[in-house]
Amino acid sequence: MNAYTKATLGKLSDLDSHIFAPKDTPIHLVGKVFLGDLLGLTSMEVSLNKDAPNTGIDFFHSHKNNEELYIFIGGRGEMMVENDRFAVEEGSVVKVATGAKRAWWNTGSENLYYVVVQAQTGGLKSSKLDDAEIIEEKVPWVRT
Amino acid sequence: MNAYTKATLGKLSDLDSHIFAPKDTPIHLVGKVFLGDLLGLTSMEVSLNKDAPNTGIDFFHSHKNNEELYIFIGGRGEMMVENDRFAVEEGSVVKVATGAKRAWWNTGSENLYYVVVQAQTGGLKSSKLDDAEIIEEKVPWVRT
Repeated sequence: MNAYTKATLGKLSDLDSHIFAPKDTPIHLVGKVFLGDLLGLTSMEVSLNKDAPNTGIDFFHSHKNNEELYIFIGGRGEMMVENDRFAVEEGSVVKVATGAKRAWWNTGSENLYYVVVQAQTGGLKSSKLDDAEIIEEKVPWVRT
Repeated sequence: MNAYTKATLGKLSDLDSHIFAPKDTPIHLVGKVFLGDLLGLTSMEVSLNKDAPNTGIDFFHSHKNNEELYIFIGGRGEMMVENDRFAVEEGSVVKVATGAKRAWWNTGSENLYYVVVQAQTGGLKSSKLDDAEIIEEKVPWVRT
């Protein structure tokens, strides 16, 4: 296995060059790019997203096995989970549990930018410092 | 279990109000906030990060069980994985496999912003449309 894989997607403002329109579905989402196949992810699926004002996800969906995290990194909008409707903006982070219905919309006047990550509910065995090993070797950059 | 949990972290430019300095370690990282405990994540650990120019991670580390994804959302820098050193910038996405050593640095003149996600290598059982169920119910927002 490769130690790493990488890709360059360009400026987030150009994300609408990506369209997610899976075959045999009515789904046609402008500004959504998934990273799973692109990078060969095995632990998670991730998308980067740009929604123009007054666009968003015009259907609810839920997940069967995966927990989903929404990280809003620019703009303003609204989200619904189950029957709760709330505002989101740059710096809002929302975890949605398996089985809950969710949708969201760019209700602002600027583009809405967000990252969505899904991974197996309960699947994290170790994290942060527990999972990390520090390597005693200097980095090549020097703090000036 | 709650259908969702959420938090508001504020503008990404204010992320340096967060300091990650775990006890009994020399680690002191300004501008790093983890979401796992904050949101009760069970599938992944996630951090939001802001590095000022000429700062970064001045040690290498690897992971034992987790795949890690770096999503660069603003600024420019450099990353090393094993012996490869490469440029990253807004829109760069890098998956690093378990066991590989990695470090990065803000070599630019602006702040470097990025999201880091870790989850169990091989832990994703179903993803994207496989894991999703569409719910036939109109969203409350109306496209004008």
